[in-house]
Amino acid sequence: MKDELTKSSKRNTQNPQIIALLTDFGTKDYFVGALKGAILRVNKTAQIIDITHEIAPQNIKSAGFTLRACYKDFPAKTIFVAVVDPGVGSKRRAILVETKDYYFVAPDNGLLSFIFSETKGFRVFELTNKKFFAENVSATFHGRDLFAPVAAHLSNGIEPTECGREISDFVFFEDNKPRKINKSEIEAEIIEIDRFGNLITNLQSADLPARFVLEIGGKPIEKLQTYFAEAEKSEIFMIFGSAGFLEIVAFEDSAANLLRAEIGRKITVKSR
Amino acid sequence: MKDELTKSSKRNTQNPQIIALLTDFGTKDYFVGALKGAILRVNKTAQIIDITHEIAPQNIKSAGFTLRACYKDFPAKTIFVAVVDPGVGSKRRAILVETKDYYFVAPDNGLLSFIFSETKGFRVFELTNKKFFAENVSATFHGRDLFAPVAAHLSNGIEPTECGREISDFVFFEDNKPRKINKSEIEAEIIEIDRFGNLITNLQSADLPARFVLEIGGKPIEKLQTYFAEAEKSEIFMIFGSAGFLEIVAFEDSAANLLRAEIGRKITVKSR
Amino acid sequence: MKDELTKSSKRNTQNPQIIALLTDFGTKDYFVGALKGAILRVNKTAQIIDITHEIAPQNIKSAGFTLRACYKDFPAKTIFVAVVDPGVGSKRRAILVETKDYYFVAPDNGLLSFIFSETKGFRVFELTNKKFFAENVSATFHGRDLFAPVAAHLSNGIEPTECGREISDFVFFEDNKPRKINKSEIEAEIIEIDRFGNLITNLQSADLPARFVLEIGGKPIEKLQTYFAEAEKSEIFMIFGSAGFLEIVAFEDSAANLLRAEIGRKITVKSR
Repeated sequence: MKDELTKSSKRNTQNPQIIALLTDFGTKDYFVGALKGAILRVNKTAQIIDITHEIAPQNIKSAGFTLRACYKDFPAKTIFVAVVDPGVGSKRRAILVETKDYYFVAPDNGLLSFIFSETKGFRVFELTNKKFFAENVSATFHGRDLFAPVAAHLSNGIEPTECGREISDFVFFEDNKPRKINKSEIEAEIIEIDRFGNLITNLQSADLPARFVLEIGGKPIEKLQTYFAEAEKSEIFMIFGSAGFLEIVAFEDSAANLLRAEIGRKITVKSR
Repeated sequence: MKDELTKSSKRNTQNPQIIALLTDFGTKDYFVGALKGAILRVNKTAQIIDITHEIAPQNIKSAGFTLRACYKDFPAKTIFVAVVDPGVGSKRRAILVETKDYYFVAPDNGLLSFIFSETKGFRVFELTNKKFFAENVSATFHGRDLFAPVAAHLSNGIEPTECGREISDFVFFEDNKPRKINKSEIEAEIIEIDRFGNLITNLQSADLPARFVLEIGGKPIEKLQTYFAEAEKSEIFMIFGSAGFLEIVAFEDSAANLLRAEIGRKITVKSR
Repeated sequence: MKDELTKSSKRNTQNPQIIALLTDFGTKDYFVGALKGAILRVNKTAQIIDITHEIAPQNIKSAGFTLRACYKDFPAKTIFVAVVDPGVGSKRRAILVETKDYYFVAPDNGLLSFIFSETKGFRVFELTNKKFFAENVSATFHGRDLFAPVAAHLSNGIEPTECGREISDFVFFEDNKPRKINKSEIEAEIIEIDRFGNLITNLQSADLPARFVLEIGGKPIEKLQTYFAEAEKSEIFMIFGSAGFLEIVAFEDSAANLLRAEIGRKITVKSR
């Protein structure tokens, strides 16, 4: 691991550094502007990319799901700034996670658990070096005063080790995996609902038997399709979505509305 | 046409290439992040511009209207990626349209009909060369796996002819023009409603007599103004909007709410 | 002042110029795309930053509050384009404001009053030089046809003095300051509500006695905290927010909903 990191830290300084943002700040207030300004103050040529600022307020799990579903699409050396931070100002720590390919700057509240689950080699640093923070760090807006400037200094070429000591007791949530009830039955869950009303489950193809029926709120769903354009209007079926999970969808309609489903709703899968 | 294209394809590689995005992905999910990441993976220095990701889900016409209303404001050589794609995964084709000034990458579902209507010289290519796609193309997210990487490769300087064969049987919707009912009457339609509740009609100044009254839901509107700041609060009047169409608007209010109007609503114009 | 400006106008042309946008255009229409296209037409390498396009329609005060709360986070030489413009097309003027550190391009409707209040040296120019406008200026979309191209020409290095004559009779709204009612009582106001439902008052720490109770709608609030993570769910308390004002907030809940409060609501502060 060490060797890889040393090698990869020889950054090509001629390339602009990409800093990708994911927050629950919304887009109507000054928060996103302040975050971007604070990055550009430190590195005028950083290439700032909005992933989303519409994570449901303070929903750490939704933030983790969303970042997990797209970070691998970015080029190596991308710096992700993920700020969903209900504990801002309290004793919760701020961390930098370095993997072979990426940097992640975030509060130490479990948001980055997916990295700890699915990544082989990584290092976690507690952000304590005030040299890389804003001069005055407010108690309510570490996005602007701490995470943004640290990310920008990283894009300028500082070493992760300069940010603070390496830690191993970071906050970590177990992955929300489906649970085998008996030989032929699995209990799973809706973990996210997208803008189209598609219900994203925590079921991946490896979890599932060759033939199965899914039940949600007493309603059985048997049809599994490979894409959207094969059904009748409002017909409900299943699909393996682009984030790698089984989804319950409705053709040209919202499965969430049709099934009155919400995040956290339990579902059952039975072999056929 | 050919000569122009040959000339224009000698791109100034020192300038960053602009890739402008228009989708119905919304901004709360991972979709936009994945799209941008997939572009940057292929061309780290692409300059990504968000036009909108808030096209009403699967509304191909609204996507066409929106792109038509702003693409000419962009500099020559801009690459537009327009993804409103209800047929994703089916046999619908993916296309690249090259005009004298621009590139458009989109599903072959009529979204780009406005180009075919209003542009003199253009070429349409079916996107089939898998060399420029993601390694694994999902059945549900061609934005990420096909349109984004093709656009990024274009920004890196590949020739449109490398993407696939030229075709002439692309999907094309006739422009939604107003219809003359008799010598003094025209039937027209609301084709879009903007965030302010302004009702955009399909009437252009050339369609209209010198003096006219417009009727919507039985209500006559006679007043035509050149700009907004001349009326009383909630007064309804007409204006030629910045997209080049006649609009029904209300001063400091929403004409859509006041008139309970929706897209597709018929309107009548009579000479006075 | 003059000397500072002369010095600061020697821009480092090797750095990209940052143009930051704040509008009430919303994000679903073609407006934002047109604005960005119009900038890039004039300066292909401008670095365009979205602050927000979700200012409440035509709310000049909210635009001023939002820009005031974040502009200082941006690096020197940033060009701000602020378009909330109910008077577009009328005789209201368009202005460029130059301060020691920044440029602001906006309608002359009071949006930039905060600059006039809090900045020591500044110059205001009326934008009249059509050389820097679009060829045809529409009566309804000066964002695209006037403000965007002027900002882009500035980013290309023109001098403010080339845009038009310096003026001193610009529109200016007095700052909405709290008002002393008597020795121990202050009347203040809710000036903004953020996405989380936090109520931002016009009270700054210098306005407040050492110990005080705030009243809103007959309800007294005494608890003042330094950050969010110390309270019970839905508990209402006060905090000094990151924009520098006293805020009324609710832990993991919306104070705006709990208190049924809206912008403009009067509040009272009494010494204890």
